[in-house]
Amino acid sequence: MSLHAGEDGSRFAGEARRGVTVWFTGLSSAGKTTLGRAVEAQLRARGCRVEILDGDEIRQRLCRGLGFSKEDRDENIRRIGYVAEVLTRHEVIVLVAAISPYAAVRREVRERIGAFVEVYVNAPVQICEQRDVKGLYKKARAGEIQGFTGIDDPYEPPTAPEIECRTDRETVEESASKIVRCLEEGLWLAGAR
Amino acid sequence: MSLHAGEDGSRFAGEARRGVTVWFTGLSSAGKTTLGRAVEAQLRARGCRVEILDGDEIRQRLCRGLGFSKEDRDENIRRIGYVAEVLTRHEVIVLVAAISPYAAVRREVRERIGAFVEVYVNAPVQICEQRDVKGLYKKARAGEIQGFTGIDDPYEPPTAPEIECRTDRETVEESASKIVRCLEEGLWLAGAR
Repeated sequence: MSLHAGEDGSRFAGEARRGVTVWFTGLSSAGKTTLGRAVEAQLRARGCRVEILDGDEIRQRLCRGLGFSKEDRDENIRRIGYVAEVLTRHEVIVLVAAISPYAAVRREVRERIGAFVEVYVNAPVQICEQRDVKGLYKKARAGEIQGFTGIDDPYEPPTAPEIECRTDRETVEESASKIVRCLEEGLWLAGAR
Repeated sequence: MSLHAGEDGSRFAGEARRGVTVWFTGLSSAGKTTLGRAVEAQLRARGCRVEILDGDEIRQRLCRGLGFSKEDRDENIRRIGYVAEVLTRHEVIVLVAAISPYAAVRREVRERIGAFVEVYVNAPVQICEQRDVKGLYKKARAGEIQGFTGIDDPYEPPTAPEIECRTDRETVEESASKIVRCLEEGLWLAGAR
């Protein structure tokens, strides 16, 4: 676990409240949404202003018509990034849960947003496939879904995420607490109301 | 000019800060963006938290690939509505400037957002065509653009907007002040920081 947020964040120190985007990337069934919800609960308990942007919901609300080609996936991430950017500017802690398999577009949204903490939600694909929360791995193996990340579509792991959570080895609470601690140490929670 | 915001808004009274979406609808060149910017300036001068969502920018950021069919226009409005909804929930005053020609989808986003003030930015199409800020009427008349609102595509005027601004008869400052006054009277600005 590395902590970069303090360095990036120093220019914000002393402000009453700050926004930040916490970006959960990882395979389907790695635990992004579960972890996002757990972090949300901890932050709300502290009185923080929080919004979860879930990849699946965003596909409904902003991305109807987009598919799963690299181009469409990148466009999907840019749109989530846009909403996260605006909310972050208005001092919301934004939790994004989206596979976001491509490193380049993750870097692009990071640069646009500025206040950005990347969480690599990491579990081996075998474990994710066992969990198969939405039954999608099964469909991918049966050939009913093509271009499924981790099966027949690439996932580019983050090379320098602020936080890595091994969800096959840590409990949800352990991972969530690690993230909240990182936000504290990076001073993102300095002014929580 | 009618003021409904006070009635709808009463359940929020007493809160420190509230969000609201102010939705500017009207023909191209009616003055939506100009008026939005003027209102933004007045609100910022009071220390309010404001975001402008401009139809043209949103088309770039969230709606690449959408055209100008009724279906695509409605989808465009729903996406703007989604972003406005999230920001309003986080106590931002959201100013939306978008032609939004169809009444049904305007009603749909109003119902979703709840805290909603509709501003009918009204100038006769002849005046808008004379202004032709972006040169689009000229292109529409020349047949270079099809389905242009007010020329060969419908515009359904609001039947009960909270505010109507006749931008051919009022100055920008008059219209903007009217809107800010409406927000005050509706208690949307009660807790401006």
